[in-house]
Amino acid sequence: MRIVSGMRPTGRLHLGHYFGVIRNWLKLQNEHECYFFVADWHALTTGYKKTGELKSNTEELMADWLALGLDPSKAVLFVQSLVKEHAELYLLLGMLTPKSWLELNPTYKDLKYNLLKLHELKDAFKERFAGRTDELIRLLGVKVEEPEEFKAFLTERLAELLVEALFEGLIEKETLKRLNVSKKEFYETDTYGFLGYPVLQTADVLAYKGEAVPVGEDQLPHLELARELARRFNRLYGPTFPEPKPLLTETPKLPGTDGRKMSKSYGNAVYFADETDELRKKIMSMFTDPQKLRKNDPGHPERCPVFAWHRVFSADEAEQIERECKSGALGCVECKRRLFERVEAFIAPVRERRKELLSDRGELWRVFKEGSEKARQVASGTLKQVREAMNLP
Amino acid sequence: MRIVSGMRPTGRLHLGHYFGVIRNWLKLQNEHECYFFVADWHALTTGYKKTGELKSNTEELMADWLALGLDPSKAVLFVQSLVKEHAELYLLLGMLTPKSWLELNPTYKDLKYNLLKLHELKDAFKERFAGRTDELIRLLGVKVEEPEEFKAFLTERLAELLVEALFEGLIEKETLKRLNVSKKEFYETDTYGFLGYPVLQTADVLAYKGEAVPVGEDQLPHLELARELARRFNRLYGPTFPEPKPLLTETPKLPGTDGRKMSKSYGNAVYFADETDELRKKIMSMFTDPQKLRKNDPGHPERCPVFAWHRVFSADEAEQIERECKSGALGCVECKRRLFERVEAFIAPVRERRKELLSDRGELWRVFKEGSEKARQVASGTLKQVREAMNLP
Repeated sequence: MRIVSGMRPTGRLHLGHYFGVIRNWLKLQNEHECYFFVADWHALTTGYKKTGELKSNTEELMADWLALGLDPSKAVLFVQSLVKEHAELYLLLGMLTPKSWLELNPTYKDLKYNLLKLHELKDAFKERFAGRTDELIRLLGVKVEEPEEFKAFLTERLAELLVEALFEGLIEKETLKRLNVSKKEFYETDTYGFLGYPVLQTADVLAYKGEAVPVGEDQLPHLELARELARRFNRLYGPTFPEPKPLLTETPKLPGTDGRKMSKSYGNAVYFADETDELRKKIMSMFTDPQKLRKNDPGHPERCPVFAWHRVFSADEAEQIERECKSGALGCVECKRRLFERVEAFIAPVRERRKELLSDRGELWRVFKEGSEKARQVASGTLKQVREAMNLP
Repeated sequence: MRIVSGMRPTGRLHLGHYFGVIRNWLKLQNEHECYFFVADWHALTTGYKKTGELKSNTEELMADWLALGLDPSKAVLFVQSLVKEHAELYLLLGMLTPKSWLELNPTYKDLKYNLLKLHELKDAFKERFAGRTDELIRLLGVKVEEPEEFKAFLTERLAELLVEALFEGLIEKETLKRLNVSKKEFYETDTYGFLGYPVLQTADVLAYKGEAVPVGEDQLPHLELARELARRFNRLYGPTFPEPKPLLTETPKLPGTDGRKMSKSYGNAVYFADETDELRKKIMSMFTDPQKLRKNDPGHPERCPVFAWHRVFSADEAEQIERECKSGALGCVECKRRLFERVEAFIAPVRERRKELLSDRGELWRVFKEGSEKARQVASGTLKQVREAMNLP
């Protein structure tokens, strides 16, 4: 099976990336024909204003991948922007993508409002005319066919319309002042590229006639769009693309050091680049069961992030740790010390290897350029067929 | 000066194209560094569903260009889709183009509603709540800062919202039935590529660091967007692009055979491909001054399309024809006969030459592939700089 997947170069890899994505890729590369790419063009959809670290982030990611065991002799490892066919296919697929498919994509508007932290504002506007939709509809003078749906539609759209009027300075200058978002930010977050990133994702996969894409639950709508676009292309121009299937994979839950989702932006992540001392500090200050105040207090491992980590890193003695914690025989300091040993043993060789790899960036690029060349050969074959189907030279 | 301009391959060239565009290009190619391209990707923005004639339309256009005297040794003549750098730059520029710039582009919504003939529907919705905007605003419960502007904004947006609700089947199923547009058409006309064609146009020009673009009045907003995008890129990543200037050119008015604007869709166009008999028939049945019923009636040349053509094709005897027409000495049949001789003399060599050119399509492609290779060399130099500026590999 042909599998395609990519990762944005946002910086060094942390353990969340490893258990969420890479571990699965390592398995897939042994079983399938895999295309894994650094999605540097995708990094521009939200990060176009700050590209100063784009190249070094790409290099860190390449080093992390190789250090973790992704193998250019097993999988095609490449950099998206080095395979121009992705751009050509993005342009062509965009021609047949109804704009509404993108705007109705559940993540699109959420993402936009999330990025700007405007959900509350939108909800506040909805509140204003919450009890008055019947009156509003009467004033509009239209005959309603689906009352409930139309009310929901009208409420949603009117609230968005008011948010826009606010940023246009047409209403509520006071409210605008209180917000920490400028008119410029409001419009500049929502770019043409941002709207179209599901089209680019589709091109990424279809350029290789990808048959399956490893995804998390939250990415299912995007893949649905890719499948719809593949069908639409095939219907318009003749059978060309397979419909890529989702490969839902179970991943062990590894929370951040504070118990929330591990994320760079929360400052609760452990990186493969972390040095021993840094790692020790992070682990020794991890959040634990707040009810276990003294060493001999009985703990509740099921709500302790340290124990969640033990499950992953100390599977062979997790049950014993659970017992000792519950009985009060094991204190948190000792428990973390044990965890540190395990995590250090896991990270240390990767850390060394990535350091080595990063000491010769020319060689890193050589490996990924070679991969990109392989990818290009496949993608250019697909594009040739696409052009023939569309009657382009 | 470096000049960039393109033309969509929509079929054979007619006289309107020649006097509106090509005649100007012929002058420019002698005075400037010119890049003229067949915009086949642009043809997809509205014509993606019917690409059956895309390649032959491109060939007809290439033949017309060469037959009319566009000269590959003077200008770079190429096919857009053969220069992939346009797609790469389109993708990159799209990342920094606020979606609102495109949606607020005056031609975008007009075009969309025009294509679907929905202007009346939108206006009808506006009528419904015309006198009630004050009440509507009261119900929305917002503090208005710019009453007139907000009313205009709200009216416009509400009408668009209702058009959408209509196609969603939420309101007025009766009205929907009466319209000759399906929900599918409504959404499928408005594609991602259609929204983004000003971005692609900008990429077309900036890929060559074009300094000037020959435009008609109606295209000024698009060029303004290209200039804004060039400025924005330069501000974000350092000086890279010149701001392309508009080259407004005066073109003689040559109406169609029925007096309206010459256009393929009106069936009132004369083509360089028209054979002698066809041409004679078209000219002999041209509309004339409706008040000149008999040969000896005095005519009104200023409102006669035949005379408008004489001004262009018979400049040396136009004054005499005007006198003879007004005095009643010249009848319409004889007047058209004279015009036919002139137009035939103009068209005949072009017709022969294009026929010759089309008899060897391989050679046509060879010429335009060579041009595309030249174009590509320049564009790839620009893209190299663009990638460096954006910190891409």
